[in-house]
Amino acid sequence: MSDRLIVYDTTLRDGGQSEGISFSADDKLKIAQRLDAFGVDYIEGGWPGSNPKDLEFFRRAAGLAWKNARIAAFGSTRKVNVPAGEDPNLRALLEAGTPVTTIFGKSWDLHVIEGLRTTLEENLHLIRDSVAFLHDHGKEVIYDAEHFFDGYLADPEYALRTLAAAREAGAACIVLCDTNGGTLTLGLAGIIRAVRERFPEMPLGLHAHNDGDVAVANSLAALELGVRHIQGTINGYGERCGNANLCSIIAGALLKLEIPLATAVALHELTGLSRYVSEIANLPHREESPYVGNSAFAHKAGIHVSAIQRNRRTYEHVDPERVGNHRRVLVSDQSGQSNILYKAGEMGIDITSDRAEVRRLVEQLKEMEHLGYQYEGADGSLEVLIKKSAGLYTPYFSLESARVIVDKSENGFLRAEAILKISVKGQIEHTAAEGHGPVDSLDRALRKALHPFYPGLERVKLADYKVRVLNSDLATAATVRVYIESTDGRSSWGTVGVSENIIEASWQALSDSIDYYLMRTINGL
Amino acid sequence: MSDRLIVYDTTLRDGGQSEGISFSADDKLKIAQRLDAFGVDYIEGGWPGSNPKDLEFFRRAAGLAWKNARIAAFGSTRKVNVPAGEDPNLRALLEAGTPVTTIFGKSWDLHVIEGLRTTLEENLHLIRDSVAFLHDHGKEVIYDAEHFFDGYLADPEYALRTLAAAREAGAACIVLCDTNGGTLTLGLAGIIRAVRERFPEMPLGLHAHNDGDVAVANSLAALELGVRHIQGTINGYGERCGNANLCSIIAGALLKLEIPLATAVALHELTGLSRYVSEIANLPHREESPYVGNSAFAHKAGIHVSAIQRNRRTYEHVDPERVGNHRRVLVSDQSGQSNILYKAGEMGIDITSDRAEVRRLVEQLKEMEHLGYQYEGADGSLEVLIKKSAGLYTPYFSLESARVIVDKSENGFLRAEAILKISVKGQIEHTAAEGHGPVDSLDRALRKALHPFYPGLERVKLADYKVRVLNSDLATAATVRVYIESTDGRSSWGTVGVSENIIEASWQALSDSIDYYLMRTINGL
Repeated sequence: MSDRLIVYDTTLRDGGQSEGISFSADDKLKIAQRLDAFGVDYIEGGWPGSNPKDLEFFRRAAGLAWKNARIAAFGSTRKVNVPAGEDPNLRALLEAGTPVTTIFGKSWDLHVIEGLRTTLEENLHLIRDSVAFLHDHGKEVIYDAEHFFDGYLADPEYALRTLAAAREAGAACIVLCDTNGGTLTLGLAGIIRAVRERFPEMPLGLHAHNDGDVAVANSLAALELGVRHIQGTINGYGERCGNANLCSIIAGALLKLEIPLATAVALHELTGLSRYVSEIANLPHREESPYVGNSAFAHKAGIHVSAIQRNRRTYEHVDPERVGNHRRVLVSDQSGQSNILYKAGEMGIDITSDRAEVRRLVEQLKEMEHLGYQYEGADGSLEVLIKKSAGLYTPYFSLESARVIVDKSENGFLRAEAILKISVKGQIEHTAAEGHGPVDSLDRALRKALHPFYPGLERVKLADYKVRVLNSDLATAATVRVYIESTDGRSSWGTVGVSENIIEASWQALSDSIDYYLMRTINGL
Repeated sequence: MSDRLIVYDTTLRDGGQSEGISFSADDKLKIAQRLDAFGVDYIEGGWPGSNPKDLEFFRRAAGLAWKNARIAAFGSTRKVNVPAGEDPNLRALLEAGTPVTTIFGKSWDLHVIEGLRTTLEENLHLIRDSVAFLHDHGKEVIYDAEHFFDGYLADPEYALRTLAAAREAGAACIVLCDTNGGTLTLGLAGIIRAVRERFPEMPLGLHAHNDGDVAVANSLAALELGVRHIQGTINGYGERCGNANLCSIIAGALLKLEIPLATAVALHELTGLSRYVSEIANLPHREESPYVGNSAFAHKAGIHVSAIQRNRRTYEHVDPERVGNHRRVLVSDQSGQSNILYKAGEMGIDITSDRAEVRRLVEQLKEMEHLGYQYEGADGSLEVLIKKSAGLYTPYFSLESARVIVDKSENGFLRAEAILKISVKGQIEHTAAEGHGPVDSLDRALRKALHPFYPGLERVKLADYKVRVLNSDLATAATVRVYIESTDGRSSWGTVGVSENIIEASWQALSDSIDYYLMRTINGL
């Protein structure tokens, strides 16, 4: 067995079973190319026998050059009473044209008898025939022993026989699957030790699900026990509670267990990869995620903030730069003055000498947070606030009046129009614009009015727009918080607005965003 | 040592360090009462020495009757060179008036030397004095050995001496803390075994953080090794990547390790407790959470859906009812016809005999999902869609025209008005309403128009309102998906709308919600 970690990614197949994820063939190709560049060893693209969309992926993947990864197609063993050569699923696996095929078979007597409705002996034939058929057709065959741990507990001897059947028929790697995700770590470790004792030469893998909240721990424990092929998904996406999170496993294996990888993985791109996959999956990034979340190295308690300023090891288990992340210091109503000073320092504002000013800022932040503002993700708004408070802010424009009208007629025609009067550099700009919706029309009218004065604003785009209902028991009259992320193509910043009226909240976040951009570019701060 | 699991909840203290969480004293009392009713043994309310808000909590908590839980105040050992009786932090702990005080002390030489800037011997005095002082004042003292595992790796003998110092001074329980959250499970298990060997009679606890993505596994492993006092937070809230998630630990301990609890925990209320804390914390519930998430028992793959219909053990590691959750079957463009039939069955619609109809529905769902609709959380809209498709739907009202106007003047005055013309039961209703924002004004105008015809609508309220930008590269012109959750006080349902215009998307979700409610109540379905 290799002494190196072999990463088998199933984001495209098992990850696609996540609630809320629906990958197109395009999405899959984008993610696969990013995974290949990152350095994973195998990319499981889909199940050609169950989903015609996956065939398109395999067709297009076959035409591309892969730097590190081998592409795998996934499927099951042959059906009962169907010869391997005539089994539609096995044929679809051949047609996928991948160098690697991964097939799963049954290890648990319950599934053999109740699921397949066949005998335990016949199941061994299914496994042998299917692996041998693919192997004889020149494939590298990876065998996923479905429900292995549940099967082992029910009938250890039989579960072990299924592994031997697959290995003898030519499987290159035998992957123990905790399909229902309910196996705890010490129990799993005991079973892996037993398997290694019985089959010391068998190359083993692990495929863990997170239903017991221990999938990463199970995978890392398997690595410590000599298992070297690890299956999982980026961000732990997957059905129910997800698969083992490869981000945490790769970082843990390299930084803590110091297991070398088969290919050169770009560990410092881990956070970028994780965010990229969130983006393509169109899911909010889980900011509390270990290693790759925005909160992973964020410090809120004043006592921690002052300690890490002396020695980062005191409250950081690994150096965030190693995984492409960075340390953050949060400002909240629990923050002491040290957090505010740290943030102001990051912004290049020196207020260390003015203790009264710092106290006033802390008070003002508490008041704003009480109203529903939250600055933890809205550094743009926070900087505008601090600069206003420190007298370092001159307004770039001011609002005189605004009106937004949305019309919908019987036949569905829809129109949104904003009429805006603002004052810029002593001039009144009175203008109007149509947009795809009320916020868009307001955004367009504002840019139209500002463009003659600040043409550089063309580069600024809205990257994300979120709305949170703060007191939902007040129904549509509830206070909403709008969070906007903007980018000029090089950097990005967040701004926030709060109001009972979504248009007003959006306006606050929009105008903060533009203020922030102008402040940075015009003042060169 | 007790043979029963003792649950120590620190949601109010360590959980409050979560990014995005800011508990008021009211919030804390609500959560504490719910935790008490659920059956936890200890509730850590806050750090009286660092946060005046926490003193209010302790003052009010002292006046309440607690059924199961003992209230604990948290703080640190005394400062260097300050006698225990004069230490402001220890005095604040006494003033909190709780039966239990939990104090943390240093186990890691790095922290003693670089953090406290004192000697290793002096640190042992700090620990002894502080524990003894609180113990002499009649407190039950719990000692948190901060950074114990890092400290043990750096200097095992010294780390063990700090534990002995606390125990000898009267601490009732010695809690090993993985403060930086970087310790992996098998390594942690080895250290716990060594501590148990050295101090076989010492009552031990564990306090784990999730920076390595293994906090729950570490806590469950500790339980398997005889540790019985477990600290954590509901939903795993906490600084950075969070604390060990008590929801997963309690469920795992009871259902898998079969460890009895000290108090009678209402396990079937676990999901409700978890959602309640999310609600008070004002954070979206993490739906992929093991045991308590909405996705935890959600099946998407057709092969799983048909198997669980035969035997739920095939793809469910525990019975969802045990933890107050339930099984769900998801409908998506990956779904086979079996999922659609299951959903239709749940709705009481029998379309099993019409295969062409089922195929047409699957096609239509794919088309709608392609446009951005997502029905996984929007059962209300799905039911309206299926009934429309099956010819079981008669419209309760139809839109003739709508106009929404939002005005904002220089001095900030803001007004939102909706003018609506709808047709109900052959009559035209032309009305207008003001609201707190555009969606609220539309909602009010619609209810005003419908009220004479359907007075029962008064009971329906909006419980949540979410907006997601689908293609954020198109800036404010992007397509948005609005998701609305409504409730009539007894049940709740989700509806969805998609458009480039947020008002239009909100209108779709609003009108689906009302359609769904009328369909259910009027038709008695």
